[in-house]
Amino acid sequence: MGYAPAMRNLDQHTITESALERIAKCNNPRLKEVMIALIRHVHEFAREVNLTPDEWMAGIEFLTAVGHITDDKRQEFILLSDTLGLSALVDILANRGKSKAATESSLLGPFFREGAPELAAGDKIARGIEGEPLMLSGRVTSTDGKPLSGAHIDVWQASTDGRYDLQFDNFKGAEMNLRARFRTDGEGRYLIRTVKPSSYGVPSDGPVGKMLNALGRHPFRPAHIHFIISASGYRPLVTALYIDGDKYIDSDVVFGSREQLVVKYRKGKAAEADAIEYDFVVEANSQSR
Amino acid sequence: MGYAPAMRNLDQHTITESALERIAKCNNPRLKEVMIALIRHVHEFAREVNLTPDEWMAGIEFLTAVGHITDDKRQEFILLSDTLGLSALVDILANRGKSKAATESSLLGPFFREGAPELAAGDKIARGIEGEPLMLSGRVTSTDGKPLSGAHIDVWQASTDGRYDLQFDNFKGAEMNLRARFRTDGEGRYLIRTVKPSSYGVPSDGPVGKMLNALGRHPFRPAHIHFIISASGYRPLVTALYIDGDKYIDSDVVFGSREQLVVKYRKGKAAEADAIEYDFVVEANSQSR
Repeated sequence: MGYAPAMRNLDQHTITESALERIAKCNNPRLKEVMIALIRHVHEFAREVNLTPDEWMAGIEFLTAVGHITDDKRQEFILLSDTLGLSALVDILANRGKSKAATESSLLGPFFREGAPELAAGDKIARGIEGEPLMLSGRVTSTDGKPLSGAHIDVWQASTDGRYDLQFDNFKGAEMNLRARFRTDGEGRYLIRTVKPSSYGVPSDGPVGKMLNALGRHPFRPAHIHFIISASGYRPLVTALYIDGDKYIDSDVVFGSREQLVVKYRKGKAAEADAIEYDFVVEANSQSR
Repeated sequence: MGYAPAMRNLDQHTITESALERIAKCNNPRLKEVMIALIRHVHEFAREVNLTPDEWMAGIEFLTAVGHITDDKRQEFILLSDTLGLSALVDILANRGKSKAATESSLLGPFFREGAPELAAGDKIARGIEGEPLMLSGRVTSTDGKPLSGAHIDVWQASTDGRYDLQFDNFKGAEMNLRARFRTDGEGRYLIRTVKPSSYGVPSDGPVGKMLNALGRHPFRPAHIHFIISASGYRPLVTALYIDGDKYIDSDVVFGSREQLVVKYRKGKAAEADAIEYDFVVEANSQSR
């Protein structure tokens, strides 16, 4: 009948060509590139597993539930991306070009908050939190070993019971706890007092929690402390330190833990707090891709 | 340090192995199979396009918007699946094993409603709708040509201005229009009176509409009429007839139109309505996969 054959005589293979033809006129080359790969992979996935209409519907319902539980305080799509390893992969891809001498990055996670209080060296970031005291110290240096004075260190962590301030029962919306901003001294040193963090489960009462359960996966992250190191002229370092010996250190539900970022507690003498010493190494902006 | 290397020394390739290892204990073999393919394709997609953190965030925000506009009356995830060709692909896959002699299937779409009124042969399904009259007739037969009497024909369509009853401005929630259920007579014949449908745009005021626009795609479906043919002992046929000559016949935004399902209006003589004649061929249950 003289119709364009790719358009109407669609089979399980030609429909992909047809879908790609439709975006031939997209005038944003990067969007086009990303969507071509997305459509190819979505179609190939469906063909590979011979996705049934019931399974497709289950997927639609799952995504709908993820969308409906997501609000200003809870981002279930990010949690989904995290638990599938996509967030960590995107982080790895973004940091591929970095110098091997620089500290590895790790996931930002959903609990960073702007505007944490600026504290002085040695101040405690945990207020009214029970737990074993912990002292964090070390230096911030460039990849060639130069100490960086005046570098900003944002630090945030969960409490001993595994909750960030945002998740406290009595959280009112503005107060900050277990988070602060420090500056390195003239020798690039920092000193932070806090309490030991513990492992915790990501929110598991929603669709992603159900998914993890159905997949036979636990929802836990090993104990860790988050950091962002920022110094003028240097690439910001978003990372975290993970506590050695944690039960979940090798099975972080969001694929954040890295061998280079695993630290041990150094036992404090007598009444001293246990300590973590860690030097953060940042890369100059000019070295970045 | 003796750690399981795949777990903590993750790079852009080993993270995929690590994510797959995590679901090794899943005790639902089909879920495991589907998720393995999904994780592989999601990771491969990110690697292939070198997805940046900003692009990843744009994707999270897009999915969040799709979730938030979805409610009982609007399913933006299905619309997303439809416009990417995934829904049509799943339909094609589900019907691959069907006899070539049977009528091809086409998308159910989001506008089918249970409980449409049962009408008698020749009744009109359009009440109070302006438009050119149209007569639909033909037979329902088995793949070996046997007429099927008492087969159910569910029919539904958009009005002349491109809206289904659910989308009418004055829609109250229960009334049915432009949809009904008929039965074939002793010779397998059906006769339905209606008005001519027209092409229409899928909802384009949401995130999927923005996506189509950014991709340089129009949001239109060619004029069509939906059918479900059900006969005891036969596989239900979900299909649609598409009107020849429609501007969008070769670029249906949801990839539903098929050459075998394209029909022409037969001009009515004098005061007679234009007509479509079409024989639906259904396959016995025993022949299905």
